[in-house]
Amino acid sequence: MNLSSKLLENTVEAFSSLPGIGKKTALRLALHLLQTESEEVVSFCDAIVKMKKHIQFCKTCHNIADDTTCSICLAPKRDKKVVCVVEGIKEVMAIENTQQFNGVYHVLGGVIAPIEGIGPNDLNIDSLIDRVQNQSIDELIMAISPTIEGETTIFYISKQLKDHPVKISTIARGVSFGGELEYADELTLGRSIVSRVSYKK
Amino acid sequence: MNLSSKLLENTVEAFSSLPGIGKKTALRLALHLLQTESEEVVSFCDAIVKMKKHIQFCKTCHNIADDTTCSICLAPKRDKKVVCVVEGIKEVMAIENTQQFNGVYHVLGGVIAPIEGIGPNDLNIDSLIDRVQNQSIDELIMAISPTIEGETTIFYISKQLKDHPVKISTIARGVSFGGELEYADELTLGRSIVSRVSYKK
Repeated sequence: MNLSSKLLENTVEAFSSLPGIGKKTALRLALHLLQTESEEVVSFCDAIVKMKKHIQFCKTCHNIADDTTCSICLAPKRDKKVVCVVEGIKEVMAIENTQQFNGVYHVLGGVIAPIEGIGPNDLNIDSLIDRVQNQSIDELIMAISPTIEGETTIFYISKQLKDHPVKISTIARGVSFGGELEYADELTLGRSIVSRVSYKK
Repeated sequence: MNLSSKLLENTVEAFSSLPGIGKKTALRLALHLLQTESEEVVSFCDAIVKMKKHIQFCKTCHNIADDTTCSICLAPKRDKKVVCVVEGIKEVMAIENTQQFNGVYHVLGGVIAPIEGIGPNDLNIDSLIDRVQNQSIDELIMAISPTIEGETTIFYISKQLKDHPVKISTIARGVSFGGELEYADELTLGRSIVSRVSYKK
């Protein structure tokens, strides 16, 4: 694309480096900013730079935070005895949006994936074990993706804690609410029959 | 959405102010930048700020430029006697991409739209008349959208130049190449019959 301006071209390049944004969308965004008030553009960039510069990771749960401890760990009303173990901050947000969980979190930063060279030491597992051993935690809820890597991670953590009385659970897996059985994948449907839940005794 | 970080929230807000970007995409982009190297993020913002600060509009054709005159007006190989009149810079890019035009441009900055309060004085029409009267221009090609406002603009410009020998043409209108007649809209199809082109005499 010939843009007749190197400055515009650089901005288009910058936007297209973002995920899911192609050349055409990047051009549209760049032209939009070109027609926006200068102050707005400055505050747009300011927000990004400030976030990048000042955001921290909570020293307890590794969630993103504006300070050394995140707002969830600081909230006095939340149950510190129940810890939900998740892969990343996106999962924290997803679970927070359900408004069904009142405990605290522990962000692993990924799952054990030997093929990609990610071992237990690359994740926040040591600090989780530490938390369980030094704080009075009753239960770990593993909200990890039901993949081979996810299962491996759950297995590894429970093995590390096998001599500790903490309870470990995983989130329920089965057919989605509102989903039709006909379209559920075989593995999920098969497992949901094996781990059926008693309805009437 | 509860993001547990005001800094992240500000960035998400900033991204969602862009056209076509909703909260979810904005969050994805913000999280992407959070995981990107600091230098890259700085150069991303730098490109935007620099563009906003230094970009100019060509004093001849009102296209965007890095200097007082744009690269198209400066190019020695381009025919300065043929001027393509367009609504905005997006149209310049679209026509440049066809690689079928070797003249220069004139960007009006819109079309005459009385309902929206846009009159001839809000557009770069005076400078176009000026160009025609003071430079040796043979032809104006009107590459304006075939809407009522577009037609009004073309009519207004040709009226202003009715005593001047400059030739005025519009780009061809008709059914699109590769389009099927069955699906062409009635107005386009009707007009394309009225303004049929001789194939064999």
